[in-house]
Parts: sequence; C-alpha cells; structure tokens
Amino acid sequence: MSTERAREGLYSRVQQFHAEQMQALDSGRFEEYAETFTEDGEFRHSPGRPPARTRAGIAKELTAFHQERFAGEAVQRRHWFNMLNVQEQADGTVHATFYVLALLTRPGERVPEIAPSCLVRDVLVEEDGRLLTRSRRVEHDHVPEA
Amino acid sequence: MSTERAREGLYSRVQQFHAEQMQALDSGRFEEYAETFTEDGEFRHSPGRPPARTRAGIAKELTAFHQERFAGEAVQRRHWFNMLNVQEQADGTVHATFYVLALLTRPGERVPEIAPSCLVRDVLVEEDGRLLTRSRRVEHDHVPEA
Amino acid sequence: MSTERAREGLYSRVQQFHAEQMQALDSGRFEEYAETFTEDGEFRHSPGRPPARTRAGIAKELTAFHQERFAGEAVQRRHWFNMLNVQEQADGTVHATFYVLALLTRPGERVPEIAPSCLVRDVLVEEDGRLLTRSRRVEHDHVPEA
Repeated sequence: MSTERAREGLYSRVQQFHAEQMQALDSGRFEEYAETFTEDGEFRHSPGRPPARTRAGIAKELTAFHQERFAGEAVQRRHWFNMLNVQEQADGTVHATFYVLALLTRPGERVPEIAPSCLVRDVLVEEDGRLLTRSRRVEHDHVPEA
Repeated sequence: MSTERAREGLYSRVQQFHAEQMQALDSGRFEEYAETFTEDGEFRHSPGRPPARTRAGIAKELTAFHQERFAGEAVQRRHWFNMLNVQEQADGTVHATFYVLALLTRPGERVPEIAPSCLVRDVLVEEDGRLLTRSRRVEHDHVPEA
Repeated sequence: MSTERAREGLYSRVQQFHAEQMQALDSGRFEEYAETFTEDGEFRHSPGRPPARTRAGIAKELTAFHQERFAGEAVQRRHWFNMLNVQEQADGTVHATFYVLALLTRPGERVPEIAPSCLVRDVLVEEDGRLLTRSRRVEHDHVPEA
C-alpha cells in the first residue's frame, strides 16, 4: 500500500476502535476488552445492574455475567453498532452515541437471536495517541428509563 | 484530543450526517430531521405514497405518518444504514446509495421487529460547508417497483 | 463540493470498496463482483464447499450457487457488514476482519429472513490505486470450525 496514504480522521478511528474492542468481547477475551477502558473506566452494560468500575472490575463483571447467562453453552455472540454520532467536546473528550444490537447464535441453529436493541453512550479519551473508553452506558429500548 | 487531527473525508462526513439525521428522526424530532433537507428537499419514504416536499412539508408528513402508524404507542424506532456507496457527481452533488432496516421495539418486548429491508437513494449537496439532503427515495425490497 | 476535501483514509476506502462490491453481488452482477477480486483471487463463501478460484471461477460458482439456492424465486438478497477491523500488514496487504449478516426478502413478505451470522476474513491488495480482494473466507457462526 502507498505510504502517502491520508491519515485517518477521528470518525474512522472510533469505528476501528469499536471493531477491535467488540471483536475482543465477542471472542470472550474479557481482559483485552477491559484494557480498552481507562484504568478508572466505568461500564454500565445492563439497566438495573450497578456499573462495573476499573479494568479489573470490568473484566470480573463480564466473566460473572457470561457465566451466569451462558454457562456451558457454546454460543457465539456478536455486537453490532450503527449510526455512530461522534462529537468532540471542549474538554478534549469525545462523546460517541450509537445504536447497538446484540446477536446470539447457537451451534447448529442458522438463525441468530437478535435482541435487544440499545442506545449506547460512550465517553472516549485519548491517552498516548490511543483511544480509550472512560465510560459506557447502555440503555435498552424495551426498558423504560428510571 | 490532538489538534493536528486529519480532517474527515467525505465518506466519514456522510456517515456522521446520517447518524445525526436519523437519531433526530428516531427521537421524534421531526422538525430537526426536516432541517437536514434543503429548503426545496424531497422525501419519498414509502412506495405508493406521494413524496413530501419542502422542510415544512416533510415535518408535516412525518407527524401525520407517525400519528397514523404508532398513535398512542410508546414505541422506539431505530433506522439502521449499511453498505454506504458514496459517489461524487460532476455537477457537485453527492449520490449516496445504501441499505436500510427499520427496527421497532415495544415497551417490555425484548425482541425488536426488523422490517422492512430497503434500498435508499440520497442526493446530497453542500451548503455553507454543511451536508444537506436534496432528495431521498426509499424502495422496499418486498414491494416490486412500478 | 469543495475541491480541497481531505483525501479518504484507508478505513473509509475499505468501506466504500465493500459497499460497491456487495451492491454488485446483491444485484446479481456476478461478473462485476468477480472483478473486485485479483485475477488469482480465492473466495470460500460456505463451509464445506471448496473455494472458488480466479475471476472466471468465482463468477461461475456464484451463478451455480444462486441457481441452486434461489432458482426461479424473485428474492432480494442483502449482505450487511459490521465491526470492520482493518489491519495493514508488513507485506503491504491489508487484512480486514468483519461481521456479516445475510438478509433475504421475498416478494410481498415484509419481514426479511436474517441468517446466518458470519465472520469474514479478507486479504486485500492495492493494484493501480484500486483495492481488490485477494482472498475471502466466510465462517458461519452456527457451524463449528473443522
């Protein structure tokens, strides 16, 4: 490839960041997913569940959540993002607001379950030239906000 | 964030434009959605229904359409776009052709309805450094073209 | 549009490439789809089926596959991509790993079939300033890898 390639803009960088982050999660690499948060990161993945905090706390919460929900099942989850709205803030953070669908495929079942539909709000920061999630809050469309 | 960031290319700008535009629509902010069209914009959102014209006409049509279809229901709609094909034209307009799925979530129902599958053709223009939709035509995959 | 527009970065170029490529496939333009591969390209679209090789071989395989699966049916297929992870390699190739859903709409049926959920691995190369697929391998989430 040409070395004179245009540098990526912020929008594409957020898309690439999300792709790597969620491929890690969907592959069950929870430590790697947690590393995409800041050390003091906060992750509120389900309404009614308290947010997980810090990288260690996020990795632990995901391990517990998957054990609880999918114990012993060889399921393949896939998270899909869409309609990514990226807004740079005056304080240097980046707000990303986007739609998410969670897909679940079971072995031998060709048709995946597609649910729920969500709205997710990320606060992203740049550290040493690398994007990280400082906080992520997931709202489920079928659950009225408190 | 770095101030030396690469400027966004057209492709990312169209994605950002669509995200803001459709988050406005899905939040029921019909006036704001209509403002993403040119003053003389045209929006043909359903086969067999005449196109809405002008910002005022588009906002009015959406209000009527939602009243007719979802009156009294606290539904959450989400429009998903994919496979965005952006083609600059010699006349300075931008043609964007892409896939769309309309999702509908009802309160308490975890699984959204996902239908119909559509092909959408946008003609975009730039006014004062801002993208606007001059025309949008929606084709439904299950409805044969006339 | 402004002529001073920022050049697109690689990430957006891969998205645009995929959009054109898959709109060709979903429109049944199999020769055009095959032209998006290198002359010696390889396409393994289904587990348990040998890969198609060369542009002529890929076009032929697609014609046979569609005849076999959808003979006489006026279906509209749509391939959706998501979570695109683009990694430049030291050898100058580009590895793209992403999620795919295959949608199928039948005339008069508003709700599309959405299946299966896949992971796709592309090896892309640049020839004369144009991206091409050297190899594409599709894994189905419901089919355990051999």
